[in-house]
Amino acid sequence: MIDMIGPTDKEAAAMARARWDSLGKPLRSFGKLEEAIIRMAAITGDPEVSMDRRAVAVMCGDHGVTAEGVTQTGSEVTRTVAENMTQGRASINIIAREAGADVYVVDIGMDCPAYENTEIVTGKMINRKVARGTGDIVKEPAMTQEQCAQAMLTGIEIATKLAAMDYNVICLGEMGIGNTTPSSAIISTVLDLPPLECTGRGAGLSDEDYKKKVVAVTSAIARYWKTTEDNEIPKDRHYSAQLGLEVMAQLGGYELAGMAGLCFGAAINRVPVIVDGFISQAAVLCARLMVPVMPEYLLASHNSAEPAGQRVLSALGLSPVIDAGMFCGEGTGAAMAMKLYAMGLAEYERMGTFHDINVEQYKMYDHKM
Amino acid sequence: MIDMIGPTDKEAAAMARARWDSLGKPLRSFGKLEEAIIRMAAITGDPEVSMDRRAVAVMCGDHGVTAEGVTQTGSEVTRTVAENMTQGRASINIIAREAGADVYVVDIGMDCPAYENTEIVTGKMINRKVARGTGDIVKEPAMTQEQCAQAMLTGIEIATKLAAMDYNVICLGEMGIGNTTPSSAIISTVLDLPPLECTGRGAGLSDEDYKKKVVAVTSAIARYWKTTEDNEIPKDRHYSAQLGLEVMAQLGGYELAGMAGLCFGAAINRVPVIVDGFISQAAVLCARLMVPVMPEYLLASHNSAEPAGQRVLSALGLSPVIDAGMFCGEGTGAAMAMKLYAMGLAEYERMGTFHDINVEQYKMYDHKM
Repeated sequence: MIDMIGPTDKEAAAMARARWDSLGKPLRSFGKLEEAIIRMAAITGDPEVSMDRRAVAVMCGDHGVTAEGVTQTGSEVTRTVAENMTQGRASINIIAREAGADVYVVDIGMDCPAYENTEIVTGKMINRKVARGTGDIVKEPAMTQEQCAQAMLTGIEIATKLAAMDYNVICLGEMGIGNTTPSSAIISTVLDLPPLECTGRGAGLSDEDYKKKVVAVTSAIARYWKTTEDNEIPKDRHYSAQLGLEVMAQLGGYELAGMAGLCFGAAINRVPVIVDGFISQAAVLCARLMVPVMPEYLLASHNSAEPAGQRVLSALGLSPVIDAGMFCGEGTGAAMAMKLYAMGLAEYERMGTFHDINVEQYKMYDHKM
Repeated sequence: MIDMIGPTDKEAAAMARARWDSLGKPLRSFGKLEEAIIRMAAITGDPEVSMDRRAVAVMCGDHGVTAEGVTQTGSEVTRTVAENMTQGRASINIIAREAGADVYVVDIGMDCPAYENTEIVTGKMINRKVARGTGDIVKEPAMTQEQCAQAMLTGIEIATKLAAMDYNVICLGEMGIGNTTPSSAIISTVLDLPPLECTGRGAGLSDEDYKKKVVAVTSAIARYWKTTEDNEIPKDRHYSAQLGLEVMAQLGGYELAGMAGLCFGAAINRVPVIVDGFISQAAVLCARLMVPVMPEYLLASHNSAEPAGQRVLSALGLSPVIDAGMFCGEGTGAAMAMKLYAMGLAEYERMGTFHDINVEQYKMYDHKM
């Protein structure tokens, strides 16, 4: 299914660029916001970009690695916060309201009994549970490859439904106590970076627990290398659906696999995706192993406080517009950036051309200096 | 009058910090947005921060230095764009609408006949003209010190009126063809940085015109040093109202002096100010020479595409939240950041405490690693 994802539409992009360049303001003066709208035109194949309907899809899952003492709070907090999201009481609800977005909350692997509702609606937990939490990645794979594939298919399904519901843009969101640990392990493995460099303090750790987290990340990577038949280092230069599936199943999590699936499904349906912070960046990095053209369908949002996030974005050729030292997760950074992109779109749609506003057109120069 | 500006309220700041730390989310996870709300509490002296009423004040003026060929368009464009602003057709109107802000456009020194209206209203040009454009700073002072003081007093007056109209936050905006040239000259002089490092391409310049601009900036600085009695280098370490007035009068512009005045007036009335891009950064740098405590009353918005902007912000201890390579001016970056700060405020106001959402409070650690 993911081999349906081809390059984006360069002609629509050129038309969007031409429209920007005709607007009565200094050329290129909206910077990355101009690039974002051009990218959306390329993804949808239409220079008439719309962001009328905006969704945040929050994938929720639990992590066996919390047994290693790598988090400040217990796994039960995942469920509490996820339920708060369905009741409109979590951080993402507050930010999404300000950004004009609807929030969809999916139980893709929380460690709790299954919820009844399976409809894709706001205000209710959407049951797509693959399993009750992952295995402890220090000791065993997070998931089987079948479970991982099922989580990815779930993401594809959700994105496809959201596209059918006329959403023009989807923000990646997640909730999962412990999920910065698998994210660090994935990023270190895929980009061949030292584990310490990829490991931050997540939602806040003491020095003692931070050390436990570094040990857990490093041990999980060692276990992965011991068991994999793949010998390519760094993996980042090699693309294969099998490799991405293996890395995600070994080191990832249900919500990470679900977010990778959201990217695939959105791309298949030509809907732009806005990446959130560290965890979604790890998910997207894995998605790119499977679909090399993936970054063309994505927009960055913010530089999170987690140190390796910037490395991932630059490996993907993505450049964030917000730099606020946030690490709240849930899709909050993506929703904020979506609002900035929507402001860029307002300029793109409503600004007069040079002719309209009686100003001679600015010229574009190649800069040698 | 500016000696009325004292330190901000540390007690209100501590109360705002305590409120943030009680909210049911990872501690400090809204990063700079938390700091911004805390700063607003310190400025207003009240942890109940409001951003209900938002203003953008756009100061418009012309520059004699355009005679040196440092711009792509002629000075007449200042007036055209400023009039478009009063008609709701400029970039800032589009962004301000998205950010929920009202736009006030002030002719403080455009090179055109005076407008009739003197009322502080939206939708009309507000006549506060001090003179028809500045002198060519390569050859003469931009203004007399009396004119400069009058422009600063105008800014104080406007900010005071906006405060009386119950605006909770004011964005700095400007329009003035040629105004990156005086801004570069001010920044180079005050921070003692090489002129080349402080000079960017403004709204877009060919290599040939860029060279002219570097020459103009350097020549203006040389002229300033030749005439001033002040021998302190770098000026940044020395504070005096007289020095700030002299630098602004010699090298600045009416809209820059007006923006410095807006900062003074807002601080006197305890209203937070959001700094825009390069030109407003230069204005604020000058304001700080006159009032050392000035930065406590300011919030940064974005890293503009002009290279020296970051140097100014870091000299002022301000950290922007947007990094989008924009250089549109008019207050567009400030208005965008204001929307992000408003999102932070929504979280601050509406998020439940740990107790409300049934989650055990996160702990704060000092990080030794």
